[in-house]
Amino acid sequence: MKKYFVLISMVLILISCGGISKNKIIKVNDAVGLKSAIETAQPGNEIILANGIWKDVKIHFIGKGEKGNPITLRAEIPGKVFIEGESFIKFGGEYLVVSGLYFRNGYTPSKTIIEFRIDKNNIANNCRVTNSVIEEFTQPDRYMKDHWIEFWGRNNQLDHCYIAGKSNQGPTLRVNLSGNEHIRNYHQIVNNHFGPRPRKGGPKSETIQIGDSYTSMTPSHVNVSNNLFEKCNGEVEIISSKSNFNEFRNNIFYESEGSLVMRHGNYCIIDGNFFIGNDNSQFIGGIRVINTGHWITNNYFYKLKAEEFRSPLAIMNGIPKSPLNRYNQVTDVVVAHNTWIDCTSPWQFSVGANMNKSSVLPQREIRSARPKRILIANNIIFNQQPDELPIKAYDKVDGVTFRNNIIDNNDNNFNKYDGLDSKSISMDKITKQLFIPSENQSEILENTYPGFEFETIEKDIFGNSRTKQNYLGAISQSTNSNKIIINKKLYGADWYSNEKPKTEPNVIRVTSNTGLLAEKVAEADDGDILELSGGVYNLTESIVINKSITIRSMDATSNVEIRYSGAKDTPAFEMNPKGNLTLDNIILKGDKTEYAFSSLEKNMSKGYNLWVKNSQISNFKYILKSYRGSFADTISITNSVIKNSLNGIELAAETDDKGDYNAEFVTISNCRFENIKRNVINFYRGGYDESTIGGNLLVENSQFTQCGGDEKSKILLKTRGIINVSIANNTFTGNPVKYVALLWGEKNNTHDGNRLIKSGKIRVDQYLKQKLVY
Amino acid sequence: MKKYFVLISMVLILISCGGISKNKIIKVNDAVGLKSAIETAQPGNEIILANGIWKDVKIHFIGKGEKGNPITLRAEIPGKVFIEGESFIKFGGEYLVVSGLYFRNGYTPSKTIIEFRIDKNNIANNCRVTNSVIEEFTQPDRYMKDHWIEFWGRNNQLDHCYIAGKSNQGPTLRVNLSGNEHIRNYHQIVNNHFGPRPRKGGPKSETIQIGDSYTSMTPSHVNVSNNLFEKCNGEVEIISSKSNFNEFRNNIFYESEGSLVMRHGNYCIIDGNFFIGNDNSQFIGGIRVINTGHWITNNYFYKLKAEEFRSPLAIMNGIPKSPLNRYNQVTDVVVAHNTWIDCTSPWQFSVGANMNKSSVLPQREIRSARPKRILIANNIIFNQQPDELPIKAYDKVDGVTFRNNIIDNNDNNFNKYDGLDSKSISMDKITKQLFIPSENQSEILENTYPGFEFETIEKDIFGNSRTKQNYLGAISQSTNSNKIIINKKLYGADWYSNEKPKTEPNVIRVTSNTGLLAEKVAEADDGDILELSGGVYNLTESIVINKSITIRSMDATSNVEIRYSGAKDTPAFEMNPKGNLTLDNIILKGDKTEYAFSSLEKNMSKGYNLWVKNSQISNFKYILKSYRGSFADTISITNSVIKNSLNGIELAAETDDKGDYNAEFVTISNCRFENIKRNVINFYRGGYDESTIGGNLLVENSQFTQCGGDEKSKILLKTRGIINVSIANNTFTGNPVKYVALLWGEKNNTHDGNRLIKSGKIRVDQYLKQKLVY
Repeated sequence: MKKYFVLISMVLILISCGGISKNKIIKVNDAVGLKSAIETAQPGNEIILANGIWKDVKIHFIGKGEKGNPITLRAEIPGKVFIEGESFIKFGGEYLVVSGLYFRNGYTPSKTIIEFRIDKNNIANNCRVTNSVIEEFTQPDRYMKDHWIEFWGRNNQLDHCYIAGKSNQGPTLRVNLSGNEHIRNYHQIVNNHFGPRPRKGGPKSETIQIGDSYTSMTPSHVNVSNNLFEKCNGEVEIISSKSNFNEFRNNIFYESEGSLVMRHGNYCIIDGNFFIGNDNSQFIGGIRVINTGHWITNNYFYKLKAEEFRSPLAIMNGIPKSPLNRYNQVTDVVVAHNTWIDCTSPWQFSVGANMNKSSVLPQREIRSARPKRILIANNIIFNQQPDELPIKAYDKVDGVTFRNNIIDNNDNNFNKYDGLDSKSISMDKITKQLFIPSENQSEILENTYPGFEFETIEKDIFGNSRTKQNYLGAISQSTNSNKIIINKKLYGADWYSNEKPKTEPNVIRVTSNTGLLAEKVAEADDGDILELSGGVYNLTESIVINKSITIRSMDATSNVEIRYSGAKDTPAFEMNPKGNLTLDNIILKGDKTEYAFSSLEKNMSKGYNLWVKNSQISNFKYILKSYRGSFADTISITNSVIKNSLNGIELAAETDDKGDYNAEFVTISNCRFENIKRNVINFYRGGYDESTIGGNLLVENSQFTQCGGDEKSKILLKTRGIINVSIANNTFTGNPVKYVALLWGEKNNTHDGNRLIKSGKIRVDQYLKQKLVY
Repeated sequence: MKKYFVLISMVLILISCGGISKNKIIKVNDAVGLKSAIETAQPGNEIILANGIWKDVKIHFIGKGEKGNPITLRAEIPGKVFIEGESFIKFGGEYLVVSGLYFRNGYTPSKTIIEFRIDKNNIANNCRVTNSVIEEFTQPDRYMKDHWIEFWGRNNQLDHCYIAGKSNQGPTLRVNLSGNEHIRNYHQIVNNHFGPRPRKGGPKSETIQIGDSYTSMTPSHVNVSNNLFEKCNGEVEIISSKSNFNEFRNNIFYESEGSLVMRHGNYCIIDGNFFIGNDNSQFIGGIRVINTGHWITNNYFYKLKAEEFRSPLAIMNGIPKSPLNRYNQVTDVVVAHNTWIDCTSPWQFSVGANMNKSSVLPQREIRSARPKRILIANNIIFNQQPDELPIKAYDKVDGVTFRNNIIDNNDNNFNKYDGLDSKSISMDKITKQLFIPSENQSEILENTYPGFEFETIEKDIFGNSRTKQNYLGAISQSTNSNKIIINKKLYGADWYSNEKPKTEPNVIRVTSNTGLLAEKVAEADDGDILELSGGVYNLTESIVINKSITIRSMDATSNVEIRYSGAKDTPAFEMNPKGNLTLDNIILKGDKTEYAFSSLEKNMSKGYNLWVKNSQISNFKYILKSYRGSFADTISITNSVIKNSLNGIELAAETDDKGDYNAEFVTISNCRFENIKRNVINFYRGGYDESTIGGNLLVENSQFTQCGGDEKSKILLKTRGIINVSIANNTFTGNPVKYVALLWGEKNNTHDGNRLIKSGKIRVDQYLKQKLVY
């Protein structure tokens, strides 16, 4: 009898323990408490991180929750727990949830911020990160590689997060597939807001990469749905899908300078996405297709102007029997029920064809295998302005079947294909970016082509059933359609918005007697304007520019002169991460051994901008000196004089030839360069990487006189490897060089209207032999 | 009221039509009747082909049956409808069944005998061929390519068929995947008997090929289960799987000189198969692994002696970033719960490693990428005789994890690996080829390694559940296990057996006066022996050898002399398809312009054999002349004298360098060659194809005297491209050549114990530069 009693008691205790553990809430205030809470956590437990700043926390979230009864690690108040410094969180186990954290002011000392594994033997499955933010948690140097989020294991999820501001090398989010534990993973990447990722100036800065070429044969089944990608400008690939059976549904790609790219792997589904461009950008892309069996349905493309690799629909040429990491032939792809509105040359075929480059590339790099068994059907192209070339082909189009596509080109004068019929369509303009076909249009209703398995295209982009009414294009019904495309509230963390209120800048008056200019700059708020009265401002130390600052003279007639006499090889203006300097109407003079501007030598974690106008700069060793890892989005010098210096603008520090470069947009307009002895401009990108599409150099309406005399290369404007170069309407006089410029004809390098007087010549080489990057 | 009546009547008529059609049987007697029957057939109809020979019938079986209610085309009596001549059958439509046909005495004028489509736009789905036979329905010439059975579409089936005797180029059965209509096909290839396919002498003679490198990324899902592969000796690949997710279950590979090869594609399942070898053959293989993610479980390997590409388990080295059609690295493969009994070096890793061949091969051919993330667990190796090298590695084994494998090597002296533990196992020998572990052996019971997803290995090779008792190796229970491996009745057509009763040969006495020798040969039955009495037999026309015939002298002392004086460039013995000639104790003389033996110039649809012993052959232009497309399985000359002829044995007609050659086994033993002016032996294979493993030349204990004087190449025994060459214990005297032989060191070319007197030398080149085949 006694025995039974003991047994029953134990059972009761066990049951009640189970009961207690399910509701247990453990609040922790520091890393030690957190560690101990994790170690003892049971299914159903909630570990609460106290509000405040958590610095240098390295969280190993190891545990075994249960389905419907996870272990949760969450912020006391979502958004009020700040993870800063050198921090990360790694998951090991099952059914673990992290919620409400805000990563900022720091970076990971590991290779990841969030990782769904501890190590090779300790992997996460069924784990989740939600309602959290990672903002500019970026490595100190651009060339230091990390991935902010790494997926491993199976059935893990990232949802309702805001992720933005990665400047360094490496995709923001990476799904890893190397090992059977990680395939058939069905990871969910949903309802996130991938905010701006700045241009990186080189490859390896995708927002999402799923697998790599080595694991491109795996069945992956990642679901990327209902996310907003806003200005994800890192590189030409916003998403690089490199495995099989991934699905991309109902995402919005908003003004992002890249494409959704099926880089490796096959049989992916791209359905119901919006790709939104604008009038200003030539870089906002659509979908680029490589490999086999992808279905591209119900997508909506608005005002995309990019070309070739980033064209609205780019179907590539492949390499015959391609090596694993290069370009397979495109076959068996279906493009059906999509709509292109006001896009330039929306359909581009055999993109990347380079049969004419066999002199500079090995045979295994020649993309001569044309797309095959491609079906393009039931699509609509609608243009408010005529487009001469709605279909652009870089090779013969013999493997593509066009069926029942309609174009309304507002003009009948364009290149025509069988199966792309010119018809007038009535569209209702709902918003600036959203055009919905008007009701009851027999042309687009009664004309659908019944392709193989087209019955599986059951719904339109808004989820309307196609059973009753099956329109061509992405939108099948005007009723039951959303009336706006983008509602930011649907994406990312509910407690965070990246829409900051605009504030008017302060204008701060400064005279040469007011005190040190450097202090004034330091005190100013981001965006402020320092207005200097006439006079000489002597500087002996560099001015740090780590925010947006304008320094201008009070009026165009006052002579504001800044004289820098700091240490040798230091800059007058030290461009720090996020520095954005405008000089307007300033005379800036050095003492022959200094630099006018330079980046930091290291820790350039984010980019900078420099705008010089109506100014005069002279007597420097360098006008601009940039270091490895630094990156300027824009360097613009207009209506200015640059003279009597040893070097001009040097953006040539990325010498490891991996495709990186130091500035995206460099503009010299209406300037005069005189007596710059060596590098007048030295802008460099090394390494053959056909998917990088920068930088950009515009030199126009300027004069170059007596420059380059000591330049060893005998080239005045050095632009090696730069993709977009325009040299137009300049006058070159008495520059003792061999070449004013040596241009790369194959890329977008042009010259026009220049006068060359005793200054060598401009040579154009069609092809440039470069080191292969991969 | 009237209206309703009409409507109801129509409904009734429609219903009754439906009813009638279901039971309709239409018997047809000729092609015209058949065509018309097919044209009008409704679901449920049976079209009966009348018994007898149907010659030159080209059947387009087009129709729409229904699920459970197919249209059937069947033999009146299964096996009594013979399809002969130039015939084929192609399917177009759905739910069509063909049953009971016997294809023989002919070949297809198309590229297929059975094809599951009519053309690109007319594909078969859910169609079936059952209970039928295709026997030696092979093209007239070996180099003419066809596929006997081509799968297209989806859900088609070949079951209970016997398929044997394809001699020409092209896989016997080919699954095609080019186009979305053909992927995810779930074709069923089940319960068939793939009977002997003769050695072809070159590549492209697989028994089954599923896809090709161009479609190797497709999800295919072909099921090859419960088939018997008997002596499928066509080439080194019995089955070449070149797509994803195929399954190979419970097949028996019986004395077949090749392997089940995962050539392209990934994630296939190889479960529960038997691979049965014997003591005699060095060519019977197991499983060869390339690519990613295959699971090899519950397989049983008995007495396999082949090496490298055909070793019992061959895990290959890949080419880094391999081109599409070459060798991907092996990764993420699982080999668990298999049993190897009395196999030689059963586990071979990095097969195909050829880093040392960079001087003769381009970089893209170098297989230096070692297997990675391979798990070998819970397997048993059991040897009755010790095997010194159970694991053979051609490169570092750093990517393979061994866990809980057991070897009983009957000797502890062998190369050891962690995770392959030497233990004594008790096995019950059930049949010659079947060893089952005895009951209650804790060593193999309590030691299973719980690898990732090993819980999916639910059953053993005999279908016994592993839930209660989970033994290492393929067999988990001795109870409930089959007691024999092969029951031929379970495979192929129920009305057909390939086991012919053995008959005693007739011995037919012949004298030189009896009449024409040629007539006697023609009259003889297959296998008969012609016994010639002493004397001279004059021949003026070739004797046709198209069956198995022995011509021998009555006794060793009688001088039987056959004198051939036919037309110039004709043979004394014309070797026809299936010719198998033995000459024993015969003197064969020509008149200088004839051949002793030759193949047909064309239409050598099948192979031949030639055995010469104790004989003397002289005064010919060629001893043996072979033509393109001809193939001898064996040419054996022993204890004989060959002399005073212009050329000896020429097997060098496959000059298009695609890897083909004219004979598999050539043996010269205890012979004397005298005064052969040009090609003493000319045995040639051209083209680099690393997977071809022939031919075989053995020259031993023979004398070569005063030969090769007019030979332009200055080589006495020409063996270029032949894989296995052994020249041993011969004496070469006074042969005015530069080389007796020029051997290929890398391959199995050896020489030993030869005496060379005034005869040049034997040179060995390690590597041979050859034209790439693919």
